[in-house]
Amino acid sequence: MKPLEVVVLGGGFAGLTCAKALNDERVHVTLVDRWNHHLFQPLLYQVASAGLSTTEIAQPLRAILSDHKNVTTLMDEVTHIDLATKQVLMKEHTLGYDYLVIALGAKTGFFGHNEWEAHTMGLKSLDDAMRIRREVLLAFEKAESANDPAETKKLLNMVIVGGGPTGVEMAGALAELAQVVLRDDFRRIDPTQARVHLIEAGPRLLPMFSEDLSEYTRRRLEKMGVQVHLNCPVKDVGDGYVLTAEERMESRLVIWAAGVEASEVTRTLAGIPLDRGGRIQVQPDLSLPGHPEVFAAGDLVSLTDKNGVKVPGVSPAAIQMGQHIAKLILDEPSREARPAYGYWDKGSMATIGRKAAVAMFQGMHVKGFLAWLMWLFVHLIFLVGMRNRASVFLHWVWSYFTWQRGARIILNKD
Amino acid sequence: MKPLEVVVLGGGFAGLTCAKALNDERVHVTLVDRWNHHLFQPLLYQVASAGLSTTEIAQPLRAILSDHKNVTTLMDEVTHIDLATKQVLMKEHTLGYDYLVIALGAKTGFFGHNEWEAHTMGLKSLDDAMRIRREVLLAFEKAESANDPAETKKLLNMVIVGGGPTGVEMAGALAELAQVVLRDDFRRIDPTQARVHLIEAGPRLLPMFSEDLSEYTRRRLEKMGVQVHLNCPVKDVGDGYVLTAEERMESRLVIWAAGVEASEVTRTLAGIPLDRGGRIQVQPDLSLPGHPEVFAAGDLVSLTDKNGVKVPGVSPAAIQMGQHIAKLILDEPSREARPAYGYWDKGSMATIGRKAAVAMFQGMHVKGFLAWLMWLFVHLIFLVGMRNRASVFLHWVWSYFTWQRGARIILNKD
Repeated sequence: MKPLEVVVLGGGFAGLTCAKALNDERVHVTLVDRWNHHLFQPLLYQVASAGLSTTEIAQPLRAILSDHKNVTTLMDEVTHIDLATKQVLMKEHTLGYDYLVIALGAKTGFFGHNEWEAHTMGLKSLDDAMRIRREVLLAFEKAESANDPAETKKLLNMVIVGGGPTGVEMAGALAELAQVVLRDDFRRIDPTQARVHLIEAGPRLLPMFSEDLSEYTRRRLEKMGVQVHLNCPVKDVGDGYVLTAEERMESRLVIWAAGVEASEVTRTLAGIPLDRGGRIQVQPDLSLPGHPEVFAAGDLVSLTDKNGVKVPGVSPAAIQMGQHIAKLILDEPSREARPAYGYWDKGSMATIGRKAAVAMFQGMHVKGFLAWLMWLFVHLIFLVGMRNRASVFLHWVWSYFTWQRGARIILNKD
Repeated sequence: MKPLEVVVLGGGFAGLTCAKALNDERVHVTLVDRWNHHLFQPLLYQVASAGLSTTEIAQPLRAILSDHKNVTTLMDEVTHIDLATKQVLMKEHTLGYDYLVIALGAKTGFFGHNEWEAHTMGLKSLDDAMRIRREVLLAFEKAESANDPAETKKLLNMVIVGGGPTGVEMAGALAELAQVVLRDDFRRIDPTQARVHLIEAGPRLLPMFSEDLSEYTRRRLEKMGVQVHLNCPVKDVGDGYVLTAEERMESRLVIWAAGVEASEVTRTLAGIPLDRGGRIQVQPDLSLPGHPEVFAAGDLVSLTDKNGVKVPGVSPAAIQMGQHIAKLILDEPSREARPAYGYWDKGSMATIGRKAAVAMFQGMHVKGFLAWLMWLFVHLIFLVGMRNRASVFLHWVWSYFTWQRGARIILNKD
């Protein structure tokens, strides 16, 4: 019997997990991604802040799937999904399918203000992280060269918009970079004079955590030299400035960690309901309404699960959805009704800086050094591939004792 | 007393060694480089062939010089040197000097055929290496996608021009990538069908080694699947092809390792004799004729030393010259005549592939596994900075047993 054709779009946590779990000769899987690698997104901020190198948080999809002989990997970019004719249109290819899994993830979102994109830097891909790393390091280089004190100040004023985990982690890492790592490396400027501003529209940082952990995070960041601005929605962003209700901040470096929206490909799905962020409103089994042969998984899904929980856009949920869909597809011939997906909350954690993190799981709230050790442990375990694990561990141990960062290299000068 | 101003141009082996050796409060040193890092060039081919990541062979100059309080590092690009007014003109700054050390190194040279540059890739900077890595990995991706067998063949036909150490090392690394590393990772193409051509104009590979080692290198490369073309000067390079006296090779990937010439800044030195490659014909003490306050060091020097030896463009020579000049500057007040520089040949080595290298030192010729172990040892010792040493060692051990390469990541898609 000819195997069923399953096309999986996206090699992130959801798509890669699904492709691996479809390890059965009854199906042939084509995994499509516009990059050639799977990215361990939770550590992207460490690449952006010059702590890790790109290759330490990425693995080639082909290498991961080398032993999965029923999986073909294709590097291409999806432009359109035609549900009626069961075809995926890409820049270079067109693929038909028996089953389709849409796991294209999310991108940086600007709440309708796309004109702000030109003046800010998002953090979703390795190229984004490399760009932030280059701009941060260049800001210090330019400040060392500048003769105008006003320009120096502007260069060393860094603004991060968004008080979620990415914003908090980025603010902590940049503060440590300026206050400790670079402290002795300049002759004309004092890197510790650099200012890191963290702007959040809502009343507290890390809103998905409990209030005491949000408060701890704020106090800890402020102790590290970060200026935290709460209840402070951004009104405008332009060339060299950020405008809030409170003030106009002069800055040449604005990192946007305030919002995400689903991949724009979801807009091409005729007749499928989307939420405001472009996320697909799926059925309880993760299939698309009216299309039991098409599933969605990961950050582009909008779902309140069978237990009444709004499923968050985090990697454990993406992994679980990928597994759920693979199981549905493989069990399909022998089953009458499909089971609904239920999110299993494994807890949340976010790191603030050296020896400081927050974690919440199964009703427990942990903060400080213990939470930081838990964070280290969990992230090392989850890193795909043995080599990366050993290498990242080595770098972290080395950085811990020397306060050095190994990835302080500026590439692509222009 | 006001310290003397010493300006060192270039943070390569020569310039960095000189700046570090000028560790004396009687001088203030400004080290200028257009990059923010020192690059361990001998391992650049490993970045280009996806074995190491960029950050493993580069160190920030500021971090290396953090404790050298009399050294100011400036990231800028030299455009002109005015010997008459003792000024260095850069894109952003102008610097006056009491002593000047020119150590700007070499760039890829095309023997007057600069039109070939658009169709080939050189290997002198980290950006060059990243570009080759991206193009090599993309060639396999595109071949997997291509429907036209002729195009597939063209994509998997890789040409390296130049049979010196860089060409040999690159050819061996690419052959291993195709024959072993990628072997099981594609479904439509067979990566082992990729062809690596190594073209050399002269009668043998590695001409600076003995004839028996050249012959061993050729046989070894051929055993690894490399097609070696000797006595085969390139007539033309264009879009998608390389033309030699023998044949026209269809190829989308041409790596140029055939020649280097001095940084173009040497052309701005009024009245200073240069050789054909733009190298400065220095005095025996490494100063410029008529300008005892200006020195040159490293790959842009043309010199037959006091022992009648033509000094080669290798890193030990660059390091020795940097040390020699620093000593001359610091000893100047107490000395009557300056000693001449003499090159101390520490031997040469080149690696061909796994367990195969060649080495020559103090009259001994070593090849095969023993030479490879020597190569490993020497390169690990020389890598600047403890962390890089441990990290590179770990990667090499890991790659040795798994045949995997950790840096198979494509960045900058467009």
